[in-house]
Amino acid sequence: MEDFSTMHPRDFRQLVRQGQYDSITCGQCYGYVQANLVILEKTYAEDFKKFAERNVKSIPVLEITEPGVHHTKLMADHADLLTDLPRYNVYRKGELVEQCTDVTKYWQDDFVCFLIGCSHSFEKLLTDAGIEIRNITDGHAVSAYKTSIPCSPSKYFSGPVVVSMRPIPEEQVDLAYELTGKLPHVHGMPIYHGDPSLIGVDLDKPDWNVPTRILPGEVPVFWACGVTPQAALLAAKPDIVITHTPTHLFITDILDSQIEALLSERE
Amino acid sequence: MEDFSTMHPRDFRQLVRQGQYDSITCGQCYGYVQANLVILEKTYAEDFKKFAERNVKSIPVLEITEPGVHHTKLMADHADLLTDLPRYNVYRKGELVEQCTDVTKYWQDDFVCFLIGCSHSFEKLLTDAGIEIRNITDGHAVSAYKTSIPCSPSKYFSGPVVVSMRPIPEEQVDLAYELTGKLPHVHGMPIYHGDPSLIGVDLDKPDWNVPTRILPGEVPVFWACGVTPQAALLAAKPDIVITHTPTHLFITDILDSQIEALLSERE
Repeated sequence: MEDFSTMHPRDFRQLVRQGQYDSITCGQCYGYVQANLVILEKTYAEDFKKFAERNVKSIPVLEITEPGVHHTKLMADHADLLTDLPRYNVYRKGELVEQCTDVTKYWQDDFVCFLIGCSHSFEKLLTDAGIEIRNITDGHAVSAYKTSIPCSPSKYFSGPVVVSMRPIPEEQVDLAYELTGKLPHVHGMPIYHGDPSLIGVDLDKPDWNVPTRILPGEVPVFWACGVTPQAALLAAKPDIVITHTPTHLFITDILDSQIEALLSERE
Repeated sequence: MEDFSTMHPRDFRQLVRQGQYDSITCGQCYGYVQANLVILEKTYAEDFKKFAERNVKSIPVLEITEPGVHHTKLMADHADLLTDLPRYNVYRKGELVEQCTDVTKYWQDDFVCFLIGCSHSFEKLLTDAGIEIRNITDGHAVSAYKTSIPCSPSKYFSGPVVVSMRPIPEEQVDLAYELTGKLPHVHGMPIYHGDPSLIGVDLDKPDWNVPTRILPGEVPVFWACGVTPQAALLAAKPDIVITHTPTHLFITDILDSQIEALLSERE
């Protein structure tokens, strides 16, 4: 994987659009907000918007396009959401039918695009403050679990709250809450820490990725996770859903340090 | 119970302070925000503030006094929180030791007072929009349940999220979400609706008050409830805790329609 950590997102997206980069986005354009993508038909989109509002810690929406529009306004100046992500998943009736680097051929005039906050931004904030992110140290993706806590449902969408888990030394738990609490648009503060069985989690059996090493004196801390909407979307089996391929995200023009001010202003 | 529904809260609190009213506050000074009271020693207070921030839907804080201060600044002009509520509960090590109408004699210089939002305000918003509140129709207090969802804990405080349940006709559920979503300082939108077993609730067996009648076509809708902090407080067994007696609340000078603007401005 080539290192584009210091490239501006505008230039990075151009590389992607020209087919010169189709790999994962971890660490690229370091310091800029990365976003999950969901594209849905209008009928489902209206209901998905409600589902997101009702489960805002799991699904913090950064931008929604008008029906029939696939260019961004707020998160980047006129980026094309059909070409500017390195890789896409296309699902029909909840089944993955194609993985590709350009979804222009699938476009429908009634499609709506959602950009959703992801935890990369808060991981930077934690590591900058001296909190180790164990799965980064150990070089694997964050452990994610379905919990026994249900989302607040909407007409079409329901399912469990999915959490990511990061072990934190007990004396840094308050700091982790404080720091991530400042970023409500990238999942915000943890939803729980402590005994995993109280939220229906077995730490040794993640539903996504591998278990994370926990050292003595560390507490498992759980954040609402961006996989929550994916799980609910696929269970609803709409005719067609397009998303980014996991870890192949949209890189916005917004710095991590600017996102909350920008979105508060808009609200 | 005398009817003071049209009285200004300032005059109502004076009656209360003079010992001329010690009954429940339901319906009094109609249209003004009523608040739950929690008084704690400073050590516990700092931790309770964290607990409230981590569980903001259950514990929406309206005002916190400085240590040693028992007069309000924001919710009313210099009301005395030791005399201006109709009735108080005093707990030592989690056990109720006295119920009284004036707690001046218990005051300590390291006490901190919390005023916490309550659901009266959103019930008015729902009924004004034509949504029946069944327990009001039937003349009983709202059914409340411990759920299987844990609060996000703090050093001293933990426990289940407690919910209140109101049955809503299916076609009004979206409206109920929309309206109460506008009032984050009085518990905000529901945390869940639908199958009660998914949150560990048996509708026939409320943990507080009596079951609520549900008609065909109605869905049980669950809001985070102000009993959540009470349960966590008593379980922590601090040396001393003073609260309002349930349904005997503090009546503020703030109109229901003004509370969100006022608190957003402050934040």
